[in-house]
This record gives sequence, structure tokens and C-alpha cells, in this order.
Amino acid sequence: MTMTDNKTGVWLIGAYGSVATTALIGARSLAKGLIKPTGLITELPEITRLLRRPAGTPRNDILEFDNLVFGGHEIRKSSFKDSIKQLQQTGIHIPSELLVKIKPDLKQIEPDIRQGLSFTAESPRAQRLPLAEMVNRLVDDITGFKKKHSLERVIVVNLASTEPPMAEGAHTKTLKGFETALSHTFASLSASRLGLFQPSVLYAYAAFKAGCPYINFTPSAGASIPALLQMARKLKLPHCGTDGKTGETLVKSALAPMFNYRNLNVLSWQGYNILGNLDGKALADPAACKSKIDSKSNVLSNILGYQPHSFVGIDYVPSLGDWKTAWDFIHFEGFLGTKMAMQFVWQGCDSILAAPLALDLIRLVDLAHRQGESGELAHLALFFKKPLGTKENNLHKQWELLKSKLI
Amino acid sequence: MTMTDNKTGVWLIGAYGSVATTALIGARSLAKGLIKPTGLITELPEITRLLRRPAGTPRNDILEFDNLVFGGHEIRKSSFKDSIKQLQQTGIHIPSELLVKIKPDLKQIEPDIRQGLSFTAESPRAQRLPLAEMVNRLVDDITGFKKKHSLERVIVVNLASTEPPMAEGAHTKTLKGFETALSHTFASLSASRLGLFQPSVLYAYAAFKAGCPYINFTPSAGASIPALLQMARKLKLPHCGTDGKTGETLVKSALAPMFNYRNLNVLSWQGYNILGNLDGKALADPAACKSKIDSKSNVLSNILGYQPHSFVGIDYVPSLGDWKTAWDFIHFEGFLGTKMAMQFVWQGCDSILAAPLALDLIRLVDLAHRQGESGELAHLALFFKKPLGTKENNLHKQWELLKSKLI
Amino acid sequence: MTMTDNKTGVWLIGAYGSVATTALIGARSLAKGLIKPTGLITELPEITRLLRRPAGTPRNDILEFDNLVFGGHEIRKSSFKDSIKQLQQTGIHIPSELLVKIKPDLKQIEPDIRQGLSFTAESPRAQRLPLAEMVNRLVDDITGFKKKHSLERVIVVNLASTEPPMAEGAHTKTLKGFETALSHTFASLSASRLGLFQPSVLYAYAAFKAGCPYINFTPSAGASIPALLQMARKLKLPHCGTDGKTGETLVKSALAPMFNYRNLNVLSWQGYNILGNLDGKALADPAACKSKIDSKSNVLSNILGYQPHSFVGIDYVPSLGDWKTAWDFIHFEGFLGTKMAMQFVWQGCDSILAAPLALDLIRLVDLAHRQGESGELAHLALFFKKPLGTKENNLHKQWELLKSKLI
Amino acid sequence: MTMTDNKTGVWLIGAYGSVATTALIGARSLAKGLIKPTGLITELPEITRLLRRPAGTPRNDILEFDNLVFGGHEIRKSSFKDSIKQLQQTGIHIPSELLVKIKPDLKQIEPDIRQGLSFTAESPRAQRLPLAEMVNRLVDDITGFKKKHSLERVIVVNLASTEPPMAEGAHTKTLKGFETALSHTFASLSASRLGLFQPSVLYAYAAFKAGCPYINFTPSAGASIPALLQMARKLKLPHCGTDGKTGETLVKSALAPMFNYRNLNVLSWQGYNILGNLDGKALADPAACKSKIDSKSNVLSNILGYQPHSFVGIDYVPSLGDWKTAWDFIHFEGFLGTKMAMQFVWQGCDSILAAPLALDLIRLVDLAHRQGESGELAHLALFFKKPLGTKENNLHKQWELLKSKLI
Repeated sequence: MTMTDNKTGVWLIGAYGSVATTALIGARSLAKGLIKPTGLITELPEITRLLRRPAGTPRNDILEFDNLVFGGHEIRKSSFKDSIKQLQQTGIHIPSELLVKIKPDLKQIEPDIRQGLSFTAESPRAQRLPLAEMVNRLVDDITGFKKKHSLERVIVVNLASTEPPMAEGAHTKTLKGFETALSHTFASLSASRLGLFQPSVLYAYAAFKAGCPYINFTPSAGASIPALLQMARKLKLPHCGTDGKTGETLVKSALAPMFNYRNLNVLSWQGYNILGNLDGKALADPAACKSKIDSKSNVLSNILGYQPHSFVGIDYVPSLGDWKTAWDFIHFEGFLGTKMAMQFVWQGCDSILAAPLALDLIRLVDLAHRQGESGELAHLALFFKKPLGTKENNLHKQWELLKSKLI
Repeated sequence: MTMTDNKTGVWLIGAYGSVATTALIGARSLAKGLIKPTGLITELPEITRLLRRPAGTPRNDILEFDNLVFGGHEIRKSSFKDSIKQLQQTGIHIPSELLVKIKPDLKQIEPDIRQGLSFTAESPRAQRLPLAEMVNRLVDDITGFKKKHSLERVIVVNLASTEPPMAEGAHTKTLKGFETALSHTFASLSASRLGLFQPSVLYAYAAFKAGCPYINFTPSAGASIPALLQMARKLKLPHCGTDGKTGETLVKSALAPMFNYRNLNVLSWQGYNILGNLDGKALADPAACKSKIDSKSNVLSNILGYQPHSFVGIDYVPSLGDWKTAWDFIHFEGFLGTKMAMQFVWQGCDSILAAPLALDLIRLVDLAHRQGESGELAHLALFFKKPLGTKENNLHKQWELLKSKLI
Repeated sequence: MTMTDNKTGVWLIGAYGSVATTALIGARSLAKGLIKPTGLITELPEITRLLRRPAGTPRNDILEFDNLVFGGHEIRKSSFKDSIKQLQQTGIHIPSELLVKIKPDLKQIEPDIRQGLSFTAESPRAQRLPLAEMVNRLVDDITGFKKKHSLERVIVVNLASTEPPMAEGAHTKTLKGFETALSHTFASLSASRLGLFQPSVLYAYAAFKAGCPYINFTPSAGASIPALLQMARKLKLPHCGTDGKTGETLVKSALAPMFNYRNLNVLSWQGYNILGNLDGKALADPAACKSKIDSKSNVLSNILGYQPHSFVGIDYVPSLGDWKTAWDFIHFEGFLGTKMAMQFVWQGCDSILAAPLALDLIRLVDLAHRQGESGELAHLALFFKKPLGTKENNLHKQWELLKSKLI
Repeated sequence: MTMTDNKTGVWLIGAYGSVATTALIGARSLAKGLIKPTGLITELPEITRLLRRPAGTPRNDILEFDNLVFGGHEIRKSSFKDSIKQLQQTGIHIPSELLVKIKPDLKQIEPDIRQGLSFTAESPRAQRLPLAEMVNRLVDDITGFKKKHSLERVIVVNLASTEPPMAEGAHTKTLKGFETALSHTFASLSASRLGLFQPSVLYAYAAFKAGCPYINFTPSAGASIPALLQMARKLKLPHCGTDGKTGETLVKSALAPMFNYRNLNVLSWQGYNILGNLDGKALADPAACKSKIDSKSNVLSNILGYQPHSFVGIDYVPSLGDWKTAWDFIHFEGFLGTKMAMQFVWQGCDSILAAPLALDLIRLVDLAHRQGESGELAHLALFFKKPLGTKENNLHKQWELLKSKLI
């Protein structure tokens, strides 16, 4: 049996969300050869040359899309039919001929979408249980899925809405502290009073406990707290994050080095983002917005080597739906103290930009796991606003980093 | 005597122009420690670390600004007083305190500004002479300057207005053909009927004949015709060009790779430039504009690996003076065939952006000459829209190329 | 029988084009109450208050959409099914639920779409006939349609592609000259050698000859030549044009007065338009583009009272489809000679913007005809880039003009 | 003695600020015929035709600039020399030839600049006095100035930094309540604990008490509280405000009507302002920013007739100095529910835009006073973001309002 006969599981947290739905439509369309691989880094000739090595060097073989089996957690009662309708209402236009062919595939996935974790939505009985038991249910969901489909591995991907940052404490610093707190905290308390644990962190813990690599595509904490970084290393599991780089920060990380090369002194860099999808709505909550802005905030100083006056704003504009518009104004000083300016406007569709990156990460984390890599996968920095394992935010260096690792 | 006691000459073609005047103000202000080196690549810590090596490895020592001696050709009867007034009228605001201190330095240079080459402005007698004699006068000007100031070397820099492209023929293909044509062509004919020779090419030839390295900061032909490429190699002289990269193309070459990394398919890239300086006026002549647009035109296909629908326009808007505004609209296709867009607006001051690059090039070409390099200096691609000796237009790769060469 | 029982015919020139198809989808959807009247000026409360007067003052009653009967000329062999597909391919997303309900209505119109006028596509025999005979066929088409549906009146609307300007001569100056030339010119000649007549002019003439009011929504000449202005007055027929104001010029005519009110001196106004529909393709022909730019060119000087440096460019960018993007850069001088700037970017869907204006014009021209108005309808200036019968280009004054006329 | 021999006093609150300094440079330059009247509404031919009536109708004669005598309050110890330096540092480039000629005029004004009102800066003794006594000092300053220069009238203009909104209460509702509170409140308390009175309100009260017309060019409360509206009517004094309309709101009020005329449904209108002058610094205080945003906030709903989703942000970006940049994004819905967008970018110099408006207002309020007008001058709505006496925010209607009043 060759490697390509093996199936890999993909466990989507936030399965009925826009990014997950778009990724699934795309994965099935690619598996069936219905679309071009535009937007997929792992289909670039420059990368596939490195990935699909000649005979005799099989290590880098990359997952084909028809070897992926999908399941996931979701807190909403929904269906892919509804989530596709939701996509359309937010301004994503997927050709109807394509949808007709893909809808049955998505329908087939629904039995593997399990009830997600929500402190407030739990039954009163569940709310009196320690969080450790809640987590065990999540682990069971994942291992059950793996067994049911005879999967070689399952990769867990966080595509859920952005949460507020998690409070630091003894429970975030060590795995021991984390697990102790977990067995002494009631679900209800965590939600209502303390904000001690955020769901993304529990999902990440459950993923590791189930022996799964983990991808955090959101700005939420996920596996980035010291306790879980430690856990991943101990269990030799690879993971990556944080916050997929799809728009303003992507452009910023491509442009900022230009000012460096030319010794142009950036005086101010103001960035204003407006968007109207569920993520935008979540970000209208100042606490959640803090997570997002945190993950955007060191990009400039890491690239420029100094911190100019800067600002990043995110505002919710419902009419925009999934279309994110960003205006950046860059004020800089050149020769003889002359002040000059540049502006850019980015008009992208959030889920359309994010979905192929999620698929790329699944393939690359799968590869890393097979190759025995573990801990934070710094070579995937290219994908993230706030990469784990490195402070490299320069897009061009991140690109070289990815390529150098694949060779 | 250490190297730093030696003086290097800089011969500016278009000496009273905006870029030359700004470069001179800057060079003298730097020599006197009056300004910060913002805008100078050769003053970046990342580069100076490579240039100013520890004791025992003196090869990379770089020219200090107070070791530069300036002279040049100019076709207009003018003075630096007038050219400074011109700068101010076109919207360049140099602090008056600085100008007061620098004006005497510039005044001192004026005796070394010689009458430049202009087919139409020559006396009727001169117009009946073969071009070879005209060129000899240019050579004499440069060698006279070198001798007068006991200079170790003179670097010739073309900062004059953009010319129409030069017609190709036997005279452009080989040095022999070139020199034959030179001795058989009357000045008057070249100007009025044939467009056989363009001034920039004669200056470049004169520079080489005088044993000088040559920098072509303009889109004019300069030393880029096969005959002169051959001449430079034969005489072991280094040279570089073409067309300093200061605005729209700079941003383009920083941004375009981003679309590659993300496998986003650029459908259309439209660029509209408006400017109001003398260069803009020259470009209002469609023939001259052709040179400029030619040097901008392969940038995208060289970086992207394919040619999207694209357009570059340049329009003369007198009220803008030296302030160049560019609007670029980039239409691209992402996952599932979704079309998205980005735009940028660049608002820069042309001479302020160009002048420090000219100073950088003088330093780097001086270094290359001392190190025995010759021919097209491909490692200076970073500075040019259409670099000689390489097709590399990706700004980030050009940056790595420069650094790798300096080590 | 009340007036509202009467049917009015609408004869569309360019019936399968994007604007006509969009207008038809809209008219039928409005007739069936399926959509909101967004985009329709004649449905604004401020206007309907003037139009739908209280009992006893019935004159201003406006046409209801279910009293419109459509037919038209088209040079392409096509169908509404194809033209809807074309709309979708150019980026217009009409909800599929709506299309399902409207498609049968459009199908019913197809028998009244007749072969349009094309010099080149005529049979060799037809090409040897004088143009007068070609025109007679057009007149017969319209009168036949009127008779077939027992229509009270037929309004002819030009929505066809932009033509080059028509050469001036004796045949454009008087109706007599026009008719003489018409009977002496062969179709083949007009097309191949002389460009003596443009189709839009022949259609306008045919409309008047058939006793119909005429609307010219395009920049083509239509009824704007002196000969036809004279004909309309003689026959007491109302007509209007030229060139529907849907984007850059619309914004320009709303913004330019602001600079007047503030005594801010506009130095330069540069406008760059990019678009990708059939109209854009037609405009890629410099001759046709001239018509378009002509109709845009006096707007500024008419509003400002002086002519700043200005430029209007139109470029064809196929990937944009029906989405027109315009970037305008306005350089202006304020107090103490200080130069400042503003820019705008307009991203609109051409047919979506144009179609409701076409429907508004049909209603308002119908009203004018019933009220006995004739000649150029200056009060409809609001709709046009280059209004007939007035030089008023200030959008706000045009709005007051419309309202004052309706009272 | 004709009217034009009489002098009118102008009392500037915030006399050393950027707007006041720029207005003074301008007023003196105009008086001396050194500059063109660009930016001055009262110098537009369309207005002067109304103002300067033929012989026999002298009522509308307008003040000449050499009949203005300046004085004012200022809380900073400073000088015009320093405030000019400040202008230059914030990016305002006034030709040095002009400054040389005007500086002596400004120097002559300095003796009439008196210590302004600042709760915190007062001596401990003063802080124990009732506010009524503080106000008396302000009144004495103004009346003393009037007497000293034998002025026919003095017009008080508020050009000081923006304050937080004033708390409402019995003291804001009636003049009686206001005066009672004034005689019972200690300066120290007002500042430190209650925020009961804001300085702008005390200045406005002092102006009226001194018998002076009053102009509030800032978003601060000034004379807009019911108590002072009552006082102005009682004393038959004219006044106007609030918040000079110089940038984003100006454009908004010119553009928004366009969407009305076309029945285009504005879904969202987001406005982002960045600026770096002292006013920007004051606005970085959220309380002061509230005053500003309040005065911008009803503009859209007043013009459109409905309230779209909207947002106005103001951020302090020090490097911009006096240059205000605004980016507005307008999302709108057209025919068949299609969503489209427009954006604008405004790059203006704050003081340069404001200063001529302040001069215009002085002239027009002087005229109104002479003509016996009193209370809120609604016909000056054109100048303000939040005009007193009217809710008219449509720029074009404001323009007609001004003209109709002058006839």
C-alpha cells in the first residue's frame, strides 16, 4: 500500500463558518478537477517542484485532495445548505454550476459535524461539571472520527470566530498548572465570571490529547500559551498559527521592506479595515478586537527595525458582507527631510482569500507530521500575521524560509 | 597616502537639472554633517556593515562625501542659484537655513560646468563637423577636469532629460560600426533628419573614451546599445543603468511578488502617472515617452512569469511640479475564480527620491571600479527600472543580489 | 377609457445590449412588483409628489411599467437568454430567483426585435440602394410595431454602442441637405469611404419620420446635428440626449461646484476611466473614444467658469467586465497660494447605473410628449453628460431645473 | 464721514493659534494687495455682485481688509514670530518674501493680545473668585480694546482649541440660571470637579455682554446653549457657528445630495480623518473628540433623509502637522439591488482652508450687524458643519441660502 492510499482526516472547528465552507467547496472541487488551483501556494510550480520529488525520494509527497476526509465541531445548529446561502448573502459568488456538483459532497460530511463547545449553550447539568470532562468529550469526538474512517492522522484546524485574549496565570504557564485548573473549574464559572479559559485553548488541548497536529488560523489564543507550547513539544506534535494573513497585513509585510531597502524613514503607518462578515461582527466586541489588533501590531516594528507612529483599526460595516476593504496611509521621510506619502486600498473577499491558505496549511502540516517535525512550525510564517516560533514578518523572507525548509 | 585622501570626480550630465542640483545640495550637506542620510542606501547599517569592513580588509572602503569633486555638462545657460529657484517653484521645500550654508559650495562648482551637447544649439560651423569631433570636445572636458583637480578617477552620471529611443542599425551593433558612423555623420544631419545618434549615447561613448565608469540614471539609450556594451567590456570599464527606480515601478517591483507567493492570478495592472517637472514636459513628447514606458514595460512579466493585461501611462500636469502622483489598479483572481482588486497611490517628490540614489550609485560604481569590475554591473539592479546585465526586476531579489555582491 | 389603459411602446436600438437587457429585466420586475425602485429618479418621493398630482390635475400622470410594450433593433443575431448570460459574464449578479420569473417576459419580446442597421452587414444588393431606402425599412419596423400592439405612442431610445463622430457638411446643417444626401448616397459608400452618415443619425431620423420622440443615451451623434434639431422642431417632437451620466462625470458635476463656492482655484483635474464591457471595447477605437471624450470635455469649464488643466482618459480593461472604475485627481489652490489635492475612486456597474436612467427618460419623455412639448428637452439635463438645449452641467442646478419643470 | 472710514475690531480667541495667525497674515496681505483672494467666498464675483450694490443702495457695502483692527485672547505666552515658526513646522509653506512684509504688521498687534481664560492657569487667589468676576475681566479686555482704537464695533471670533461638550443643567437652559450659576461658582471648582462651564461659553457670554457679535468657528459649545441663544436675541446681537466646514464634511455635504438625486441607497458611509496639528492633539482627548464628532454626525441624515450605517473617526498623526487627510468609503445600492462603492481622499491644509472662512465670516457678520440682524444667522450655514438656526446641511442649498439672503 502506498502512502497515497492513506486517508488523512481534517477536523474543522467552526465547520459551518464561511472559511470552512469555502475551503470544503474548494477541496471537493479540486478533488474532482472542477477548478483551477488559483490561490493555493502548494500548487505553485515553484513549490510543487520542491514537494513532489523524483522517484527514490518519496518523503515530500503531498496530500491529494481526494485523500482528505472532513469532520468538525460547530456550535450553531446549521447545515452546509444554510452556510452556502450565508456565503451568497455576504457577497461571495460561486458559480451555480459548480455548487450543484459539490452540494452532495458537503451533505455527506454533515454526519461528522459534532456539537461544539460553548460555555453558555451547555445544559445546566453540564455547566456544573469540571472543564476536564468537557474536553474529554471533544477528544472523543476526534478519536471517534479517526476510528470511524480508519484515518492515518487527523489534523485539527481552528476556523472559528475570534475570541477575547485569555487571562494569563498559573494555568497558562505550565501544562501541569493548566491541567490542574481544568479539573477544578466549572464550565459555568469560566464563562460567566472568570474568562479563565477560552474555547480555542480547550480545542487545542483536546487536539493534542487526541494526538493531532493543530493549525490556528484565527487570532484567538489556541495553542500559543506556554502550557500548550510545552505540551506539543512533549507529545512531539507539530502545530502552527496565529491568524491567517489575508489582506492588509499581507500587503504591509510585502511593502514595508521597500522602505527599508531605500532608507526611507516611515513616520506614520495608519491602517483602517472595514468588513461586514461574522468575523467583523465578533470584532465589533472590543475584547475580541484586541486579539486581532495584537496579532497585527508588531508586524511593522519587526520588519522596519523601529516602531513608527502606527494604528490599526477594524470597523464592522454590515453591508460589506465578506468583502474586506482596507485603506492604509503611509507617511515617510526621504532625502533632505522631505515628507512623502503612499496609500493603498485592498478590496478582498475574506473567505476566498483564507480558504486556500487553510488547505495549504493542512497539506504542509500533514507533511511535517509525517516527516517527524514537532513544536511550532516556524517555516509556515508566510501564512500568518503573528507566526509561532519566529518573529519574521517580512513576507519575502518568509517565502525564502518556506522554500528552504521544503528542500 | 591612504585611499581616503584621494579625490574622486563626479561628472554630471544635466548639471543644472533638478536631480543633479538636489544631489549636489545633499552631497555637500552630508559632507558637512548638516543632514541625516535618509534615503541613502549606502548609509543603511545593513549595507555599511558589508562596506566598511574591519581593519585588514580595506577593499570595501566607501567614498566619503567630502572626497567628491563635481563638474559636468549642461546645455542651458544657467546657475545653481537659478536651479535652486527652479526646485522651489516645483514644490521642493529645502530648509532655508540649509540652503544658506550650501549655496557657496555650489557656486564654487560652476566653473566646472561646461557647455553640453545639443545638435540644434551648435553654431552653423560646428554643425558641419563630423560628430566624432563633437565627441572629442566632450572627452577633453572630462579629462581636463580630471587633470585640473588631480583626480584618481571620474565617474560620469547621466541625469539629463529623457530622449526618444535611438534607431537601430549597423552603427549600434558594433563598436566599429559606431565609430565609422561617428566620423561620417554631420551634427546637423543627425539632429534634423536621421535621429541616428542621441546625445546620451555620445556622452556614454565620451565617458568610456575618457576612461570613466558610467551611470545612466535616465531611460535614454546611454551605454545600452550593443556597440557600447562591447566598448565597456573591451576597456574594462564598469557601467550601469537604466532609468532610476523611484516611484510607481519601485512599488510595483515590491508588490508584484506578493501575488506570486499567493498564487493569485493578476488579470490586469493599470498604472497612471502624473507629474509636472521638466522630465514630465519632455515625456509629453510621445517619442521620449516611449523610452520611459519601454523601461517600465517588462517589469511585470519578468516578476510574475506571465504577462497580464497591463498599461502604463504618463501625463504631464504642470501644477504638480516635481511631485509625481501615481495610481495603480491591480485586478486579480483568487480561489474559485473570484475577482478582487487593490489600488495604490504614490505621492513622491521626484528629485528628492532620485538624488540619493544617484549618490549611492556613484559610491558603488566607484567601489566596483577600484575592485576591478567591468561591464554591466548587474548587482545594481535594485536601482533601476530596466537593469543592465540582468532581467531581475523583483525588488527583494535585487536587494539580496546587492548584498551578496558586497560580501 | 382613462389614460392609464393606453399602452406606450418603447423601441430600443441595441435591444440585446447590456443596458437594454438590464432595463427590460428591471421594467418587468417593477411591473410585477418584484423589486424596489432603487436607482429610479421618477420614483423619488420628491419627484412623484410633483408627478402624481391630486385629482383634477391629471396632466402629470406618469406611465406605469405594466403599460410599456417593448421592441427594437439589434444588429447581432442573439436572444435575451444569451444577453443575460453576457451580463453575468461581465460581473452583473442578478438574483437567480428573479431571473427565473422574468425570462419568459423577455422571451415574449423577441419577436419584436428586428434586424438593425449595419452598413457592412447588408447584402450586396442592399448596399447598392440609397440610404433613404434603408431608412424607410427602419420607419416601417417602428410603425408596424405601433400598429401591431395598438400603441398610443412609441418612444425610440438609442442604447447602441458608441460610434465615431459624424463628419460635418451640407448634409448635417439643414434637413433639406440631409434628405438630399440620403437619397444620393449608397449604403456601401457611406460605410467604406466617406463616414458620411453614422447609424445613430439614421435611426434618429427614422424615429422622427415615424412620429416618435427620441432619446439618445449614447455619445453618438443621434439627433444632435442641426438638420435633425430642425426636423424635431418642425414635427413638434420632443427629444433629448446626449450620453447618459452614470459615473465619473456624475461625480464631477456634483463636486466641481464645491470648488466654486469656496473660491478654490482648480489647477488640474485628471480623470482616468477603466472598463471592460462592449462599450469599453468600442472605445478602444480612438475614433469612437473621441465621441465619448468630447461629451465629457466641457463639463468642467461650464461649471467652473474657467478651464483648468484637465484630461479624461478611457482605457479598456477586459477583466473588469461591466464594472467601471474611475480615478480622478483634483489639484487645487487655496489661500496664500497653497496647493492641495483631492482624489476620488468610483466603482460602479455600468448597465446597472444606466438602465434605470433609461427607464426614467422613457417616462419623462412620454410625459413631455403628452403635454405637447417639443424640441430639445433641456430640463432633462440631469441625465446627460452633454445635455441638449442647455449648457448647464452643474448637477445641483440640473436637479432644480428638473423639479421646476415638473411643477 | 462714509462708512468705509470706520474701523471694525476683530477679537480673536486663540490669537496665536494656527488659524488665527494664518488669517492675520492673509488679512494684512490682502489689505496691502500682496495676494490673490483665493479661498475667500466674499471675493467671488457671484457674491460681490450682490454685496457691492450700485450707488443709491449702500446697505450691502462690505468691510475692506484695511479697515480691520485686530486684538484677542490667548492662554499661551507666545508671539507671532513663534506662531509663524509653528506654522512652518506643521508643513504650511508661506513664501518668505510675503512673510518679510507682513511680520511687522503682526508685531504691531501683539500689545492687544491679552491673557486668555484658563481655569487651571489662574492664580490661587483668582481661583477662589466667582466666575462672574473672571468674565468681567474678559469684557473689560474687549471694551478697552474698542475704546482704545475708537472702533464702531468689535466682532468676537472663537478660533481656540476644541473643548469637551458642556454638561447640561439649569445653568444652560436660561440666561437667569446661567448668570446665577456664574456668580456662585468658583473658577477652581469648575475646572477640577464639575466641568460645569467651558471657557468657550464664558467667552461667548463676555462677547455678548460687551455688545459684540460672535462667531464660533470651533466645535466647542460657544453661544449654542439655550441660555446664550436667549441672551443674543434679547440683546439683538447676531452670531453664528458651529465648527467651520473645511474638509471631509465639506465634501460629504457636496456629494451626498448626488445619491439622493439618483435614488441610490447609501448603505454605509465611513469616514476616517487623520491630522497632526494642535487641534488633532486636542482631539486625541476622547472628550474633546466627542464635540467634534457630534458636529459631524447629523450631516448625512439631514441631507439623505435617512440614516445609513456611518462612522466618523479622527486620529492624531503627528507627522502630518497641519495637513489633514481624510478617506471616506461610501457603499451604496443601485438598481436590482446591486452594491457599488465610491471613495474619496481629501488632502488639505487645515489652517489654510479655515483662515479665509474666518475672514469671510467677520465680513458677513459685520454686515448683518450693520443691517440690524440678530440671533442665529442661518444664512451662514455654508460655513459650518453644524449650523445654528437651521438643519440645512446640503452644501448646494446652503449656497442658495447665502445668495438669497444677500440680495
